[in-house]
Amino acid sequence: MAFDNDKNTIERDETHEMISSEKVDGTVVYNRDGERLGTIHHFMVGKRDGRVRHAVLSFGGLFGMGERYHPLPWDVLTYDTEKGGYVVDLDKDRLEGAPSYERDQEPAFDRAYNEQIFGYYGVAY
Amino acid sequence: MAFDNDKNTIERDETHEMISSEKVDGTVVYNRDGERLGTIHHFMVGKRDGRVRHAVLSFGGLFGMGERYHPLPWDVLTYDTEKGGYVVDLDKDRLEGAPSYERDQEPAFDRAYNEQIFGYYGVAY
Repeated sequence: MAFDNDKNTIERDETHEMISSEKVDGTVVYNRDGERLGTIHHFMVGKRDGRVRHAVLSFGGLFGMGERYHPLPWDVLTYDTEKGGYVVDLDKDRLEGAPSYERDQEPAFDRAYNEQIFGYYGVAY
Repeated sequence: MAFDNDKNTIERDETHEMISSEKVDGTVVYNRDGERLGTIHHFMVGKRDGRVRHAVLSFGGLFGMGERYHPLPWDVLTYDTEKGGYVVDLDKDRLEGAPSYERDQEPAFDRAYNEQIFGYYGVAY
């Protein structure tokens, strides 16, 4: 908000029940060691029930070799007000081995794929 | 997708269980008479349960006098594949009288405000 400084905005936001998709997109995701894993690029919403299922992490890849998208189950993300980003219990190796795709090769996000993602992160779909 | 034409993309998307927040943002919203009401600017997500509660309609206003945001309950929107946009049973007068705010004056989206919006559109919160 134009009339708040950043700190107030974050504190006030945390008292909200809701968050804007605009504020989620671009938010940094860290692991528990404080390593930066990437940023949230967009998220995937169930059409019928309107539930956010995946936050899609944009991950630059090694040696700048092209951006990859890693869908993460929404429930594995925790917002950390001090860091100003999401924290997930995930090391980089595990993220690199996770289901992912290139920008122009978006998968179908059908039930089988969604279950695959949730299964990888140990979350019930 | 780069390798599909628009028609195929829309048809294939409609078989998906999910939609990307990127594709929702900017989508045109029509009423049942085919009038263009505005476009979806972003949406509001419940932090605890990850449910999309409101699609926030960007509405140019009369005589170009400033953009206003009108939160609509997600459930009142229906995607129309032929129009390539959402359809809502709402005339312009009713939209103009609905809860809305200016870009720099985002409300708290607390329970009272959310219930006010859902109540206006006759949807249980």
